[in-house]
Amino acid sequence: DVSGVDAKSSHQTHTFPGLINVSTFIPQIGALDSENFRDATAASVSGGFSTALVLPLGKEDKIADGASLEAARANAGSAHCNFTLSLCATHQNVASMTEELQSEAKSLFIPFGVGPSNLSLADIASHFAAWSCGKPIITNASGSDLASVLFLASLHGRSVHVTDVTKGDDLLLIALSKAKHVSVTCDVSIYSLFYTTKQFPEATCLPSAEDNAALWSNLGVIDVFGVGSTPYRLAVDLGKVASARSGLEEALPLLLTAVSDGRLTMDDIRVRMHDNPLLIFGLPDQSSSQVEVVIGRTSLFTRKSDIWSPLDKSGVTGFVHRVVLHGHTAFLDGVISAPHGREISSSSIV
Amino acid sequence: DVSGVDAKSSHQTHTFPGLINVSTFIPQIGALDSENFRDATAASVSGGFSTALVLPLGKEDKIADGASLEAARANAGSAHCNFTLSLCATHQNVASMTEELQSEAKSLFIPFGVGPSNLSLADIASHFAAWSCGKPIITNASGSDLASVLFLASLHGRSVHVTDVTKGDDLLLIALSKAKHVSVTCDVSIYSLFYTTKQFPEATCLPSAEDNAALWSNLGVIDVFGVGSTPYRLAVDLGKVASARSGLEEALPLLLTAVSDGRLTMDDIRVRMHDNPLLIFGLPDQSSSQVEVVIGRTSLFTRKSDIWSPLDKSGVTGFVHRVVLHGHTAFLDGVISAPHGREISSSSIV
Ligand SMILES: [Zn+2]
Ligand SMILES: [Zn+2]
Ligand SMILES: [Zn+2]
Ligand SMILES: [Zn+2]
Ligand SMILES: [Zn+2]
Ligand SMILES: [Zn+2]
Ligand SMILES: [Zn+2]
Ligand SMILES: [Zn+2]
Repeated sequence: DVSGVDAKSSHQTHTFPGLINVSTFIPQIGALDSENFRDATAASVSGGFSTALVLPLGKEDKIADGASLEAARANAGSAHCNFTLSLCATHQNVASMTEELQSEAKSLFIPFGVGPSNLSLADIASHFAAWSCGKPIITNASGSDLASVLFLASLHGRSVHVTDVTKGDDLLLIALSKAKHVSVTCDVSIYSLFYTTKQFPEATCLPSAEDNAALWSNLGVIDVFGVGSTPYRLAVDLGKVASARSGLEEALPLLLTAVSDGRLTMDDIRVRMHDNPLLIFGLPDQSSSQVEVVIGRTSLFTRKSDIWSPLDKSGVTGFVHRVVLHGHTAFLDGVISAPHGREISSSSIV
Repeated sequence: DVSGVDAKSSHQTHTFPGLINVSTFIPQIGALDSENFRDATAASVSGGFSTALVLPLGKEDKIADGASLEAARANAGSAHCNFTLSLCATHQNVASMTEELQSEAKSLFIPFGVGPSNLSLADIASHFAAWSCGKPIITNASGSDLASVLFLASLHGRSVHVTDVTKGDDLLLIALSKAKHVSVTCDVSIYSLFYTTKQFPEATCLPSAEDNAALWSNLGVIDVFGVGSTPYRLAVDLGKVASARSGLEEALPLLLTAVSDGRLTMDDIRVRMHDNPLLIFGLPDQSSSQVEVVIGRTSLFTRKSDIWSPLDKSGVTGFVHRVVLHGHTAFLDGVISAPHGREISSSSIV
C-alpha cells in the first residue's frame, strides 16, 4: 500500500549536472509551423533534461539536406532546452554532405528499417568516407546490419554510436567489439529497460522479456540511457494518444524508482545521462545547468500533458523538483519558465 | 569462320601443376549409393583437376555431422581425383563439432541463403570460437551477411575464405578488408566470369553484366577461380539437364579461351587454381600431378557426357590434353583411366 511505503521511506534530494537526452524524437520535425519542437523541449525540461540531441528522423519526415535542416531549425525558435540537430544518411545524399552542411549538424545518423530504401554497404562506406572525422556517426542498426556498420566503421577507423539497442545479441556484439578495441558506444531507450512485449504484446518497439533481462545483466556495456522514439511508437502501437512529449517526463521517475528499488545507482544515471553523452558527442559541459530530484518518496506519477503514459495511475519513488538551465530556473515544481534554449549543434569540444 | 581462325593461330601445349577446384559441388552428396561422387570426380579429372575440395552442401542435403560425413565418404570409394570433405555450420551443430570430427574435415562452411533457418550472429560467433584454428572457414555470404562474417572473423582473429563472389560490392568490401589487413580471401565461380543474367535472364546464380564487369576489373582481388554450384544451378534455372558433372569440363576451355583472347594469362590460371588454393587451404603440394593443355587451336567444345552445356556447339581455343595424377596418366585425349583418387581431408601443411 502506497502510504505504507511512503511512511517507511526516507526521501532525499539529489542534484545532477545538466542531463542530456541523446535520442530526442520529434515527429513531423520539419513540418511548417509545427509545435512539436516546442512540446518536445518543454517536456524535456519538465523531465529534467537541459540538452536534447534531436534525432533527424521524424514520424514520416527526416532531416537529410540543407532545406530540411532549415525547416527543423525554423520550428526550434522557442526551444525550452538546449538542442542539437543532425543529418540522416540516405542512398542519394552523400554528395550533398558539404563541409558547410556538416558544420551545421551535430552528427550523421545511419538509419535501418525506416522506409523502403535501405542503405547499401556501398552507401554506408561512402558516408563513412565523406563524414567529418570530428563529428559522431550514429546508427540504429541491429543484427547483421549492425555487424556491417561496425565492420565498415572499423575498416574506416571511425567510431560509431549505436542507438536504441533492444536485443541481447546486439549488446553482446557491441561488448565483443569493445573488448577488441573497436570504437563503439551504445544507448538503450529507457522504456526498453522497464517495459517488454510480455506486458505489451502489440508493441513492435520493445524488447522481449528475455532481451530485457539481457540489457539489465549487461548494464556495464550500455554507455547511455536515452528516451528515443520508443515511447511515441509504443503509444501508436497500442492505439493510444502519442505526442512529441511522450516518454520524456517518464524517464527520470522510472530511473529513480529503479534506484529506490536498488536496481540502479545515482552514479549509473549521471554517468549515462551526463558524463558519457558529453564525451561521446563532444558537447561543451554546462556547469551552470543542473537538475534537482527527489527520491525515496512514493507519489502518483504526474505530468503536464494529457497524453497516454504507461505510468498513468502508477506510484513512482522519484521525480524532478527543479531544473536550472544556464543559471535560470527553467522548471520548478511542475511550472515551466519562458523558453530560452539555444542551438549547440556546432559547439564541440572535440 | 572457325577454320580461318584455326589456320591463323599457332597452337601450343602448356603444362600446369595439379589444379585444384576449391568449390566442387556434388548434388545428393550423402544419398545411399549415389553415383554423383564418381561422376563429379571423373568430370573433374576430365576437366583438368587433380584435386576436388568438395562443398558440404548438396542440392537438398548437407554434411553437418559425423553420420552425413560418413555417408558422403561411402560414396567416395571410386573417386577419380583426390578430394577433401568439409562440414557445414548449422544453428544446432556447434556443440557436436568435436576435435575428432574436425580432424576428419578439411574446412567449415558457413552457409547463407540455403534453406529456411539462417544462422544468427551468435551461431556464427560460436562456430568461430569452436572451429580449429588450423583449419579454414569458408562462407558464401553476400552483402551485410558478408560484412557480418568478416567482422566476426576479425573480432575472433580468424581468416575467412569467401566462395562464389558474384557482386561487385562484395568484391569491393573484400578489397577494402584486405587493404586493412583483415585476413580474407575469395573465389569466383568460373561461369560468373563468362556468363551473366544479360545472356540468361532466368538465371538466379549469375552476376549481372555490371557485376561481371566489376569482377574483371578487380581481378587482382580474386584469389581463386572455382567451379562452384553455378553450372548446376544455371542448368536447373534454365530447365536443362543438370548433373554432378555440370561445368567441370567447361572450366579450362573457358579460361584458356580467355587467355587466347588476351583477357587472362596462364599465370593468372596457375596462381588461382594451384598456388593460392594450396596456400589458402593448407594442401600438400602434389609434385607428381600435372595437367597438359593445348591453347591457340580453335575446336568445337566436346565432353564425355550428354548433359546441357552453355558451350554446346561453341568454338573454344583451349582444351585439356592429359592429366597426370600422382604419376599415373588419369586422363588422355578424352579417355579416363580407372579411378584412384584418395581422400586428403586430414592432410595439411599448416
Ligand atoms: Zn545524492
Ligand atoms: Zn558536467
Ligand atoms: Zn528545491
Ligand atoms: Zn538563458
Ligand atoms: Zn606455357
Ligand atoms: Zn605445386
Ligand atoms: Zn601429350
Ligand atoms: Zn595412384
